[in-house]
Amino acid sequence: MAAPLATLTTDFGAGSPYVAAMKGVLLRGCPTARIVDLSHDLPPQDLVQAAFFLRETLPWFPSETLHVAVVDPEVGTARRILLVVHPQYRLLAPDNGIWTWLPESEAATVYSVINPAWQRAEVSATFHGRDRFAPAVGQLLSGAESSLAGPAIRDWKKLPMPQCSVHEGQITGEILFVDAFGNAITNIPWSAAVGLPGRWVEVQGRPILRQVRTYADAKPGDLIWLASSSGWLEIAQVQGSAAKALGLSRGTPVLVSAE
Amino acid sequence: MAAPLATLTTDFGAGSPYVAAMKGVLLRGCPTARIVDLSHDLPPQDLVQAAFFLRETLPWFPSETLHVAVVDPEVGTARRILLVVHPQYRLLAPDNGIWTWLPESEAATVYSVINPAWQRAEVSATFHGRDRFAPAVGQLLSGAESSLAGPAIRDWKKLPMPQCSVHEGQITGEILFVDAFGNAITNIPWSAAVGLPGRWVEVQGRPILRQVRTYADAKPGDLIWLASSSGWLEIAQVQGSAAKALGLSRGTPVLVSAE
Amino acid sequence: MAAPLATLTTDFGAGSPYVAAMKGVLLRGCPTARIVDLSHDLPPQDLVQAAFFLRETLPWFPSETLHVAVVDPEVGTARRILLVVHPQYRLLAPDNGIWTWLPESEAATVYSVINPAWQRAEVSATFHGRDRFAPAVGQLLSGAESSLAGPAIRDWKKLPMPQCSVHEGQITGEILFVDAFGNAITNIPWSAAVGLPGRWVEVQGRPILRQVRTYADAKPGDLIWLASSSGWLEIAQVQGSAAKALGLSRGTPVLVSAE
Repeated sequence: MAAPLATLTTDFGAGSPYVAAMKGVLLRGCPTARIVDLSHDLPPQDLVQAAFFLRETLPWFPSETLHVAVVDPEVGTARRILLVVHPQYRLLAPDNGIWTWLPESEAATVYSVINPAWQRAEVSATFHGRDRFAPAVGQLLSGAESSLAGPAIRDWKKLPMPQCSVHEGQITGEILFVDAFGNAITNIPWSAAVGLPGRWVEVQGRPILRQVRTYADAKPGDLIWLASSSGWLEIAQVQGSAAKALGLSRGTPVLVSAE
Repeated sequence: MAAPLATLTTDFGAGSPYVAAMKGVLLRGCPTARIVDLSHDLPPQDLVQAAFFLRETLPWFPSETLHVAVVDPEVGTARRILLVVHPQYRLLAPDNGIWTWLPESEAATVYSVINPAWQRAEVSATFHGRDRFAPAVGQLLSGAESSLAGPAIRDWKKLPMPQCSVHEGQITGEILFVDAFGNAITNIPWSAAVGLPGRWVEVQGRPILRQVRTYADAKPGDLIWLASSSGWLEIAQVQGSAAKALGLSRGTPVLVSAE
Repeated sequence: MAAPLATLTTDFGAGSPYVAAMKGVLLRGCPTARIVDLSHDLPPQDLVQAAFFLRETLPWFPSETLHVAVVDPEVGTARRILLVVHPQYRLLAPDNGIWTWLPESEAATVYSVINPAWQRAEVSATFHGRDRFAPAVGQLLSGAESSLAGPAIRDWKKLPMPQCSVHEGQITGEILFVDAFGNAITNIPWSAAVGLPGRWVEVQGRPILRQVRTYADAKPGDLIWLASSSGWLEIAQVQGSAAKALGLSRGTPVLVSAE
């Protein structure tokens, strides 16, 4: 039988003692657990980047995986901690909407985690990853029923995804994420972009004319646009960093125009 | 039964081939091992940061966990390698004191690891993580008795923790650690700080008046002080980086004054 | 029995959603897998650094380990994906030569991975790590025969290792890798360097006279040269960064001269 599996996603920093402390508490709760790190380098307290990350990654996992995502600027306040039980995933996250970009999030059963047996006896005001999330993981991986977490709720917070808009044959969107290669992923669905005839992309006042299928389809240094691996319009530089070349970061506006 | 568990903490750098080589040797020695990375991004050769990290993290793990910590400026010299067996943890570390900030470290039984069967046949002068630590992990995870490591010793090195001082109603301490959020953890126990009547904190010549329970208890940009999740006085900026805002780093002096 | 083991090495960036998506697909294919991260911080699209990393790390693992290395500037083109079966390791990698620095690579049996059942139904043009590598890992860890991957081939690409040259008692080499301590590993075999009588090392126009056995054999700040832990000539600064002190990076020329 497979050892119980939990993934961890935080903005604590890869070298942080906070990540390590969470792992310790988790393993105390479930000594046979397998822990898989997804990322601990999410930008601090950035809910949009966290939501993008979870949407891009969680759907690929086996549905029985338990995911834990702690990007939690409101730690220690009355904000709730949620256990999300969805046909495609299980997730513990603060009630700040970071999981609501996942496909069909409305289909989830959501519990507010309040069972005192699912948290440390002494809960700090600033580190619920260790004091509330990790003990709850231990409970769930050890086989506890989800419904023991607390009451089912319906009024969880939603985080709106920045939407692109279409006006007179022009799509206006923005950059959602810049990856380690300097490729910039936008919020413009690929299907919408390629629906425009004679289309071209403009960013930072600069037209990018070259539409390709993959990076090696143009010359080193060329600026290109293409379909990201998850269906968004992506801007890249062959064997270079589009982000550096063009000064791109999250929120930079992007236009797709028809001729 | 749970697969045997080892945690790794080093200053080798997250992308380092040295970490990977250690994992390989460890898995050769114990093919069923579970490896949990704590951090490989400790500041190079910084014993104080290593000691802080171990103190903040190891107590949270199940007591049967085997921890390995390699921050080892004296690699290849006559400095010893220690196997520390404590009621709350087991640890392999160089004899440079990095583990001695752990609670009740005096209660440990400590062995000098010299058994030639616990190291590679050929030991390099510069990489004992691979040639001496990892093979010892393999032995221990495979069930070898701790006492086979070598002789028990009592004269291990201690690393003094920087102490804060109290003088005429004022506490003088320093910053021990800056986390990825830019929060600064001091060496001033919270209980000491809040024992002063009408207290306020001063750092870099700047008074920080606002004492809060958690980050979201003040406005974005506010400088605050609060109890860290492990009981120290912590300086933070709401939704910002206190370290950047105030120019804080390890060793920066911090005062707590009574009115 | 040990849970099946796969290691991952990429240039995706430690915090990348791409690494996480690969892990998800891998675990769908083999729910009992143990995943060991080697590095996700290899320099983007740098085949030489990838080849150095694999050579320095893979030989240390148990021979039954399945390694996956994705540094793949030609993703989405006709370049092949290889399954390398060697007496000392198993490896999935793009056919760009990054594995060919491994010892006795010629002894490998190499398959071109084309079995459509070993990839996702829909394969993107830009993310074969998720769509072709990870599903192949799932197949192999679940026990599929290597020969089912596709046809055995002999014409795989080789990546030449930068060679050092010897001329009139002088060895000319270059820096292959700078580690997190700022130590610089060259492509000059230690045995060649110490074969020169009255030898000294020169780099960036600066002579480095001090040959030592390990870092602590000289004073803090001293520039030294020594045998790296894998048998190369290494340049270091005691308790400092030789790379910063001397401005070293990959490709910097290094000379060893006889008196």
